[in-house]
Amino acid sequence: MTDATIDLRSDTVTRPTPAMRRAMAEAEVGDDVFGEDPETNALEREVADLLGHEAGLFTPTGSMANQLGLRLHVAPGEELLADVRAHVVRAELGAAAVFSGITTRTWPSERGRLVAAAVAEVAEPNAGAYSVSTTAIAIENTHNFGGGTVQPVDEVRAVQSFAREQGIAVHLDGARLWNAHVASGTPLRELAAGFDTVSVCLSKGLGAPVGSVLVGSREHVAAARIWRKRYGGGMRQTGFLAAAGRYALRHHVDRLAEDHANARVLAAALDVDPATVDTNIVFAEVSDPAAFVTAAAERGVRVMQLGPRSVRLVTHLDVSAEDAARAAEVLAALPR
Amino acid sequence: MTDATIDLRSDTVTRPTPAMRRAMAEAEVGDDVFGEDPETNALEREVADLLGHEAGLFTPTGSMANQLGLRLHVAPGEELLADVRAHVVRAELGAAAVFSGITTRTWPSERGRLVAAAVAEVAEPNAGAYSVSTTAIAIENTHNFGGGTVQPVDEVRAVQSFAREQGIAVHLDGARLWNAHVASGTPLRELAAGFDTVSVCLSKGLGAPVGSVLVGSREHVAAARIWRKRYGGGMRQTGFLAAAGRYALRHHVDRLAEDHANARVLAAALDVDPATVDTNIVFAEVSDPAAFVTAAAERGVRVMQLGPRSVRLVTHLDVSAEDAARAAEVLAALPR
Amino acid sequence: MTDATIDLRSDTVTRPTPAMRRAMAEAEVGDDVFGEDPETNALEREVADLLGHEAGLFTPTGSMANQLGLRLHVAPGEELLADVRAHVVRAELGAAAVFSGITTRTWPSERGRLVAAAVAEVAEPNAGAYSVSTTAIAIENTHNFGGGTVQPVDEVRAVQSFAREQGIAVHLDGARLWNAHVASGTPLRELAAGFDTVSVCLSKGLGAPVGSVLVGSREHVAAARIWRKRYGGGMRQTGFLAAAGRYALRHHVDRLAEDHANARVLAAALDVDPATVDTNIVFAEVSDPAAFVTAAAERGVRVMQLGPRSVRLVTHLDVSAEDAARAAEVLAALPR
Amino acid sequence: MTDATIDLRSDTVTRPTPAMRRAMAEAEVGDDVFGEDPETNALEREVADLLGHEAGLFTPTGSMANQLGLRLHVAPGEELLADVRAHVVRAELGAAAVFSGITTRTWPSERGRLVAAAVAEVAEPNAGAYSVSTTAIAIENTHNFGGGTVQPVDEVRAVQSFAREQGIAVHLDGARLWNAHVASGTPLRELAAGFDTVSVCLSKGLGAPVGSVLVGSREHVAAARIWRKRYGGGMRQTGFLAAAGRYALRHHVDRLAEDHANARVLAAALDVDPATVDTNIVFAEVSDPAAFVTAAAERGVRVMQLGPRSVRLVTHLDVSAEDAARAAEVLAALPR
Repeated sequence: MTDATIDLRSDTVTRPTPAMRRAMAEAEVGDDVFGEDPETNALEREVADLLGHEAGLFTPTGSMANQLGLRLHVAPGEELLADVRAHVVRAELGAAAVFSGITTRTWPSERGRLVAAAVAEVAEPNAGAYSVSTTAIAIENTHNFGGGTVQPVDEVRAVQSFAREQGIAVHLDGARLWNAHVASGTPLRELAAGFDTVSVCLSKGLGAPVGSVLVGSREHVAAARIWRKRYGGGMRQTGFLAAAGRYALRHHVDRLAEDHANARVLAAALDVDPATVDTNIVFAEVSDPAAFVTAAAERGVRVMQLGPRSVRLVTHLDVSAEDAARAAEVLAALPR
Repeated sequence: MTDATIDLRSDTVTRPTPAMRRAMAEAEVGDDVFGEDPETNALEREVADLLGHEAGLFTPTGSMANQLGLRLHVAPGEELLADVRAHVVRAELGAAAVFSGITTRTWPSERGRLVAAAVAEVAEPNAGAYSVSTTAIAIENTHNFGGGTVQPVDEVRAVQSFAREQGIAVHLDGARLWNAHVASGTPLRELAAGFDTVSVCLSKGLGAPVGSVLVGSREHVAAARIWRKRYGGGMRQTGFLAAAGRYALRHHVDRLAEDHANARVLAAALDVDPATVDTNIVFAEVSDPAAFVTAAAERGVRVMQLGPRSVRLVTHLDVSAEDAARAAEVLAALPR
Repeated sequence: MTDATIDLRSDTVTRPTPAMRRAMAEAEVGDDVFGEDPETNALEREVADLLGHEAGLFTPTGSMANQLGLRLHVAPGEELLADVRAHVVRAELGAAAVFSGITTRTWPSERGRLVAAAVAEVAEPNAGAYSVSTTAIAIENTHNFGGGTVQPVDEVRAVQSFAREQGIAVHLDGARLWNAHVASGTPLRELAAGFDTVSVCLSKGLGAPVGSVLVGSREHVAAARIWRKRYGGGMRQTGFLAAAGRYALRHHVDRLAEDHANARVLAAALDVDPATVDTNIVFAEVSDPAAFVTAAAERGVRVMQLGPRSVRLVTHLDVSAEDAARAAEVLAALPR
Repeated sequence: MTDATIDLRSDTVTRPTPAMRRAMAEAEVGDDVFGEDPETNALEREVADLLGHEAGLFTPTGSMANQLGLRLHVAPGEELLADVRAHVVRAELGAAAVFSGITTRTWPSERGRLVAAAVAEVAEPNAGAYSVSTTAIAIENTHNFGGGTVQPVDEVRAVQSFAREQGIAVHLDGARLWNAHVASGTPLRELAAGFDTVSVCLSKGLGAPVGSVLVGSREHVAAARIWRKRYGGGMRQTGFLAAAGRYALRHHVDRLAEDHANARVLAAALDVDPATVDTNIVFAEVSDPAAFVTAAAERGVRVMQLGPRSVRLVTHLDVSAEDAARAAEVLAALPR
């Protein structure tokens, strides 16, 4: 991939800016398995504060943050409910079942958009000794495979309220919670309120190279710390990565508005309904996605096939307004 | 429970008839872990023949038969699709996730009735290295929590055909396949055709005390035999149980038509739409199921609450036409 | 296998006597998943009483009884210690790891004979957040692959005392505890004292066709009952099997002394040190076990190869003193 | 911890040198989940070449590298053999059982030193359908809890030869293989030969902040890459970490000789038999380890309790000869 290429496959492809690299280079580090890495400790505290939770835990990936959160709530043989296209059931390679013995059922949705009634329809809390009991619900905000969908706050509150009554835990997969915050104007603390655990990702829209943070109660985070080691996620001098994350929190949140604007430019070029583009992700229907991906790549624009009839375009830190305009022009000219 | 009680909670409560007891008492037995129990070997062969598959395996329960079948098709981290109220995801205590690392997503349905398009909508075969691939689909016939629903043959065929194209295995949870056969007139072999594995239960409608059989290819059954031992299901002189099963196959299949007629009597008494009563299971909506269950029990009729607004009534070998009539009278008189 | 054959492969091959068959035929039965099978309830109570524990649970196999017991004591990622040739680590197909996530380390032993110091040497209780903690120890009495070895009571007490101090649970795999009782004269209650859970088998020396019982505290047994269903071990009208077990408890315990005497006859014929034959199992070293097994079978005696240089002979209910004498003659004449 | 403190708890506490930081700051990076991180790709190639294997995979930790390697060789229910104090069974929190369903038995050893006969004594390859089959053996070189023990090459070769004959895979936990290489003079390629998979760690003696590499055949590494994502170890711009590892390979291997010399200085001060100090790890027996740890810390030397009667001292990149001399003086003066 030359630098001239515009890479819209995912917001995970971003590369640290020079200023972020400087923050990394100057990081003070220690052994995080012993809890002695100052940057990592600071990052965990800062993210927990930002989201209004008691404690935080740095993890190598968003998948690990989600999986640690989920297993705190669901014992082997108990049930997690999630959207039928949720990242936790689609893109984490079945880890909840394989590693935690968590059984899942799913609710159908339009574009990943949460409808509390659809969740309640499926839930079976306190199902007794002969049936599976629902003990956790996962909500994804923004919803990746739904197209970067921002979850409606009132539906989130309705699910939380139902869950609380029924003794069900609720986990927020907030890999792109920053985008939901910027797009909706709702404070992060409010978006993260009412959840038992929340994961957020530093390496997607925020542009840090590696890492996520799981937040929750002190007890949950302490338990997650032990399980992180069991998963093979207990890294040592993580301060370099944490420093990048802290830099991103200070400098790369508000600018997500640019990514959202760029996404709208791309959507328009591909005749995608702007009402379906809440944030930085655009799904466009094309008749032959593989051919479309190849043709775009030949013209310097990388997009990803996702599903038998669609391609996904994701804007991010390394895609400027000029890049978006150029990509829009290229893609608009391709046969769909 | 006195003998006068009419027990409609489940068709698992049946007690062997004197003739079945005689068949058991005369069984010739051996050590089935060593493959040397003659009745069990005969039963496995007979059920495999009846269903048109190569080989069979006797198991202590229908749950174990299902779980053995499923794990043959789905590697850890791969995906099983099932109806949102399927027995394999609702009533086997999450065993597929706990023991086999199988992740599940579910399709919505009306009364458990299969609609092939709903399955295809959810399936994600060959999803690559970053996503979960669907590798098995489970169909339940009749569908227990759907109300004893007989699956439409053309929808079954459509799912099988889609699955074959996509390299997805299909397992039939046929715990009550006998009921589907008797209600629809479709031959058992036809109902079991096109599936990679099929489980059938001897201890529900058929009235045997214990046991199920899993059928499939010789390779599948040989692998299931080893896993049966790992699950703790490798019993020794099972010939007594197998003899009861063989007796039931010869004498208790056709009579299921009586159970179906009795179910319609109960449905009528409770103003349940007869179009929703395909076989021996009736779901009736009541405003206070717990109160209804208690009131019925006080009057000598046992029913089971299933769901927040419904009770389940199941007819079986130990419920005569007179019992059904009496139960109908009792239940019709209760406040709903 | 003709009736003339003397089957010394295992004490699992026994076939019910006519009297036991009668007890089975007359059993009053109910649905044990609903806790309504009278014979099974009586069996569970009787075995619990006999062993001095609060409650009991009938299971299809000894493997399931052991696996249910172990998982009550050991959370995923915690450690079970066992003898290097213990049934729970050698002959249950890795179930503790596969189904319960239990990691195991093993102590070396002579003939399976317990030495408390060897256990303490390996144990690592309360190992902190970075290491695996030992949370259970399994003891097998008699020890099958050790040659039917009766465990020395003082060594058992020493392990229990160490374990209690360290907060480690102790499970007794008592599949053949009856043999230990008869051989040593120690009361069953005493042999089962000081353990958190105990499994005993009805289908080995006792000659019942199917089943084991797990005993322990009421809480443990209640939890095991739910997991039994998850494993696929929740059978229905188990009263037939339980009736056989109850008959065996009343009539087949004391007669194990005959099996032990017969085992000594076999041992003498094969020049096996009588000091290594505590109960009904004889291991004999032979240079070519496969050839020995075949030659014996041709002469009407079935034995089993176990290990590269040894065969196992097991006496039981279906081997009379005359059978043992004849088998001894046949085997003594074979090249070793 | 002030800079004046000498930290001998572990060689994981090292902090990157200025030169290593520069290498990190200049790293060219990409999305490693897409296989597009140039530094990571180069590191994987270099380590594979160095160890004479086909391919390599970067992982967040040594635990994950080991666990990925082991699961390639052992199916659920099969058996791994390891030393009773091996890192894979003691310090990875039971991950092999929890995540891979791997059952383990262990061989006893002196100081972790491999004796091929002890391994063969325990192994049970091809154990048939009723018993657990050994399918992998793990060897640790150097052996951490054995005291940094270098494995004798001829015993390693004997185990490999036995394993090859029996169809058993052999995994090398080479977290500190660098130390074995420097201490013994045996080329790395030779130390890594004959193994199916090998893990090596960049963040222990080599002083890189984060990461390990698993090497093996192309097929094994491709499979491990998918499982790495499932474990939550699929990080994005790992080039920063890989660059540190590459720097360490070029500059920090030979200098391990200094660590070994420093370890001997510490051993002498504590009257530890120098024959038990092969590399950079010293175990010293003390009567009250907790008191010893505290007293040492008050005097500016950090050591770790490991076991009820011993402390561990580890030398590394951040411990100079002067530091070692000073620590030796401090520790020698403490009551033991």
